[in-house]
Amino acid sequence: MKVLLLFRLTKDGAFLVNKRFATAIHILSALAYHDHQAPLNSDILARSINTNPVVVRRILKKLTVGGIVQTQRGKHGGVRLAKKPALIKLSDVYDCVESRQLISMNEKPPKKDCPVSCSMGKIMESLVSGVENSVKLYLSKQSLQELVRKI
Amino acid sequence: MKVLLLFRLTKDGAFLVNKRFATAIHILSALAYHDHQAPLNSDILARSINTNPVVVRRILKKLTVGGIVQTQRGKHGGVRLAKKPALIKLSDVYDCVESRQLISMNEKPPKKDCPVSCSMGKIMESLVSGVENSVKLYLSKQSLQELVRKI
Repeated sequence: MKVLLLFRLTKDGAFLVNKRFATAIHILSALAYHDHQAPLNSDILARSINTNPVVVRRILKKLTVGGIVQTQRGKHGGVRLAKKPALIKLSDVYDCVESRQLISMNEKPPKKDCPVSCSMGKIMESLVSGVENSVKLYLSKQSLQELVRKI
Repeated sequence: MKVLLLFRLTKDGAFLVNKRFATAIHILSALAYHDHQAPLNSDILARSINTNPVVVRRILKKLTVGGIVQTQRGKHGGVRLAKKPALIKLSDVYDCVESRQLISMNEKPPKKDCPVSCSMGKIMESLVSGVENSVKLYLSKQSLQELVRKI
């Protein structure tokens, strides 16, 4: 039942409600916006996102490993950006939090007597990596600073 | 339980095994490869893909509506490409079979007292459409003919 709660069904079929990237962008925008003030904690960030602090902490862990945010411990501790917003490319954020491929391949074994089936692996691999690269190229052209200007 | 079967869990979280695009590419590659021969039916196509004919028929319906394939009824009937492979752009295939967005937005209502929360909708909308556009641009530069050359 726990698994089911992660998903949502649409009229057209099923898709995963994976909001890791959107949540990371929200967290980083909030940190950039409040840059001159005290560090924020996961409870405040969760209220802004309208989500559970556990979700925020999970994303913050990934962003810390990726060197995008840093944590200050203690009573007045919290999270800060580890770099200036202008130096944080959205492709770096994407790389930190997204691990799934945008387009899925057929993972069943090919039919050995079918030349089309045997070629599909390499054909789809090339398409999947082309799609990923085009998305990362688009995101690499935008920095967190540009997003924060829209707030 | 039926819903659960549509999904797969990874170490990193959960993602949907959505292979509509990969299945459509496989179907169209097979049709292009066998172009000079008799039309193929969903059973033959399903054997090549190693999937259920119902899955193939569902995708074929979308590709028929999109004007990419056409169906010939009768005993020796089956499916053919409706256009030459050189005229079928992969972005057209994508548009036919994919309806989900590659990147999901946070759909929870914004916190009205938080300027970051209130701006996230328009910030993410612009990012989501930028990502979709960059993927479609990449796919529009490739035709089915180029894929079939790799078989």
